[in-house]
Amino acid sequence: MTVKNAFYAQSGGVTAVINATACGLIQAARQNPDKIGKVYAGRNGIIGALREELIDTSVYSDEEIQALRHTPAGAFGSCRYKLKSFEENIEEYRRLIDVFKAHDIGYFFYNGGNDSQDTAYKISQLSEKMDYPIICVGIPKTVDNDLPITDFCPGFGSVAKYVAVSIMEASFDIRSMCESSTKVFIMEVMGRHAGWIAAAGGLAQQQDGDAPQIILFPEISFDKQKFLAKVKASVDTHGYCSIVVSEGVQFEDGDFLSASSNVDAFGHAQLGGVAPILANMVKAELGYKYHWALADYLQRSARHIASKTDVELAYQAGAKAIEYALEGRNAVMPAIQRGENGEWSFIPAPLDKIANVERFMPRNYITEDGFGITDEARAYLAPLIEGEDFPPFKNGIPEYATYRQTLAEKKLPYFEV
Amino acid sequence: MTVKNAFYAQSGGVTAVINATACGLIQAARQNPDKIGKVYAGRNGIIGALREELIDTSVYSDEEIQALRHTPAGAFGSCRYKLKSFEENIEEYRRLIDVFKAHDIGYFFYNGGNDSQDTAYKISQLSEKMDYPIICVGIPKTVDNDLPITDFCPGFGSVAKYVAVSIMEASFDIRSMCESSTKVFIMEVMGRHAGWIAAAGGLAQQQDGDAPQIILFPEISFDKQKFLAKVKASVDTHGYCSIVVSEGVQFEDGDFLSASSNVDAFGHAQLGGVAPILANMVKAELGYKYHWALADYLQRSARHIASKTDVELAYQAGAKAIEYALEGRNAVMPAIQRGENGEWSFIPAPLDKIANVERFMPRNYITEDGFGITDEARAYLAPLIEGEDFPPFKNGIPEYATYRQTLAEKKLPYFEV
Repeated sequence: MTVKNAFYAQSGGVTAVINATACGLIQAARQNPDKIGKVYAGRNGIIGALREELIDTSVYSDEEIQALRHTPAGAFGSCRYKLKSFEENIEEYRRLIDVFKAHDIGYFFYNGGNDSQDTAYKISQLSEKMDYPIICVGIPKTVDNDLPITDFCPGFGSVAKYVAVSIMEASFDIRSMCESSTKVFIMEVMGRHAGWIAAAGGLAQQQDGDAPQIILFPEISFDKQKFLAKVKASVDTHGYCSIVVSEGVQFEDGDFLSASSNVDAFGHAQLGGVAPILANMVKAELGYKYHWALADYLQRSARHIASKTDVELAYQAGAKAIEYALEGRNAVMPAIQRGENGEWSFIPAPLDKIANVERFMPRNYITEDGFGITDEARAYLAPLIEGEDFPPFKNGIPEYATYRQTLAEKKLPYFEV
Repeated sequence: MTVKNAFYAQSGGVTAVINATACGLIQAARQNPDKIGKVYAGRNGIIGALREELIDTSVYSDEEIQALRHTPAGAFGSCRYKLKSFEENIEEYRRLIDVFKAHDIGYFFYNGGNDSQDTAYKISQLSEKMDYPIICVGIPKTVDNDLPITDFCPGFGSVAKYVAVSIMEASFDIRSMCESSTKVFIMEVMGRHAGWIAAAGGLAQQQDGDAPQIILFPEISFDKQKFLAKVKASVDTHGYCSIVVSEGVQFEDGDFLSASSNVDAFGHAQLGGVAPILANMVKAELGYKYHWALADYLQRSARHIASKTDVELAYQAGAKAIEYALEGRNAVMPAIQRGENGEWSFIPAPLDKIANVERFMPRNYITEDGFGITDEARAYLAPLIEGEDFPPFKNGIPEYATYRQTLAEKKLPYFEV
């Protein structure tokens, strides 16, 4: 086996543990110097490959690579950039091959979600369609948890833990205040199409009636009267109502609540998310004082409260990608499997079965009334937030690492991206 | 010294560490059984005293009391309720005295912020004005950090740590994404009048140019053109701009940005906070893609990322209140003092010098351009977030305690609050 260099890139929205995957991958590559030369990281994902901006990770010490494990977000930059099909933009593929050739790249690793696995699949076809031999392995990553085949997506376990812990804490707060002040708290979380992240809020419940009393999923059509009745019932029973809402909640006709007909005095569309819309609805119809939070990036970057299980499997997914590549497996993704006793393993899942397939919450994970999670959901979700993996702290804040970007010398002409 | 019972209540917006104060107070009281009988906690603050709803804390085991130290929010319920003056509502004071007499209460402890110290001060005057002997000690608590005399307010250290860690993590995220996607991130934090919480975001900066590149304080009038120019300069230099904004940011004329003339299609006032307004401004004028977060209750209840310094001093403040009471000091509050070598101590500060006095950020804590914090601010703030004090976890979430409320038998007629 000849030595070839590897290209690794981070793609799409980043997570608290995507760098743990980079850590696992680079460490595994360094253990195989007879097969893998340098690992180049794409500067800002696939854009780095197109621009021939290849970050040379060989300049980092072992300690620096180890620090990737506890550093959130994408150390090498990510991107939102989808390769078109071969037919639509052959120039991009020719450019990629030029770059791969110029830097002796034989392995391509792409760390991302749905769109990214589609990109990875297209790259995996280069050998066959354009006669450039390359082994391409996709690596799962997305807080949305919507990739098929894999038991869960690294990144999701940590956002799930963040959401469960945060809604638990905020619910303790509102319970303290509800007698004479705020009675409804609404926390908006990510999830445009799938309710996995919102569902994780249900893990804060220790027993029946515990907060959050309401979870709103994109998979369940929003029914205003049913919602308001549930809020009122919760306030009547518990004195307050704690709510987790997925940003993608929709009316029965498919319109997003967050896009409902609110425009400001200047004619601009409503700026906020769905949380303030629900809050206003509660105030207008029930008169309760409310508070709401919108976690946005905080939820997916919260490495300080990452799930140990998530960190570990993100790390292993990176190492496993190297293993598959060295076994000569092209067009696969390490997919996480859960054993009968909760043990974790990986299988190589074919990329063409993953690209562009979205996995939604099964209906039996959502309670019949549509406002909570079932025991089946709980059994699925609970192991994913198991364990803590606090980063090192210094002066009261986490010691996250930043990485100087030493680019491989460019050998090709400029290419417009 | 005869044995008297004590009344303790939590007041105003709760924090991640107010229960640590309850823990310190109850433990110190239990060490003095020859002087203090039962500690009754007011159910929902002073409302509990008025309604004669006194939670008997003697039913809790030592382990349960210890668990208060790591449990956020108000275990006994808080309230937003301000006693009127003696002249305006003498009935309330007569009722309090009836309740105190009925339950042999000789010590009154009130744990809160500005308004609450005002209440404590009024209670402290009962001996003199209404001939009921009572020793009243206020105990500082407020995330706003706006009480005078005390070096800082327990509760603030933890929200400061939350804000510093959160904006650091979210800034790592946006830095990863900015090449092809989001360029501006805005995090809105609490602070209606004083910018202490927003200032804490500056602790995320390790060196010049680090995020957050912009902090907006209520103390500095908002200048739209200056703000937009600063955003553009940051994006030009760093590729992105990370912003922490205080909810209380105002225009030069004193109008809150968050109350600016936005009304939705139904004529309702703009629902969101100031973050979406700034985001829209950035989009409209500079065209950058944005994300924004509104932490709301999450920031003040985040016991999982509490400051060890804050927890410890919150605890000590509770114990110190008992010490002052047993020394016969009426109408004081344990105020935190910082020694020359950073060591912490307490002095008894007179309540009449604290009630209703608000402390703002000194101008020299804010950089000349108004968008950041100075070395003086950093020197003040940094020790307050020092150290971690993670709660115990079980099944991936913190083991926070809830407290059954065993009320003392009522001896008085109903009183309408």
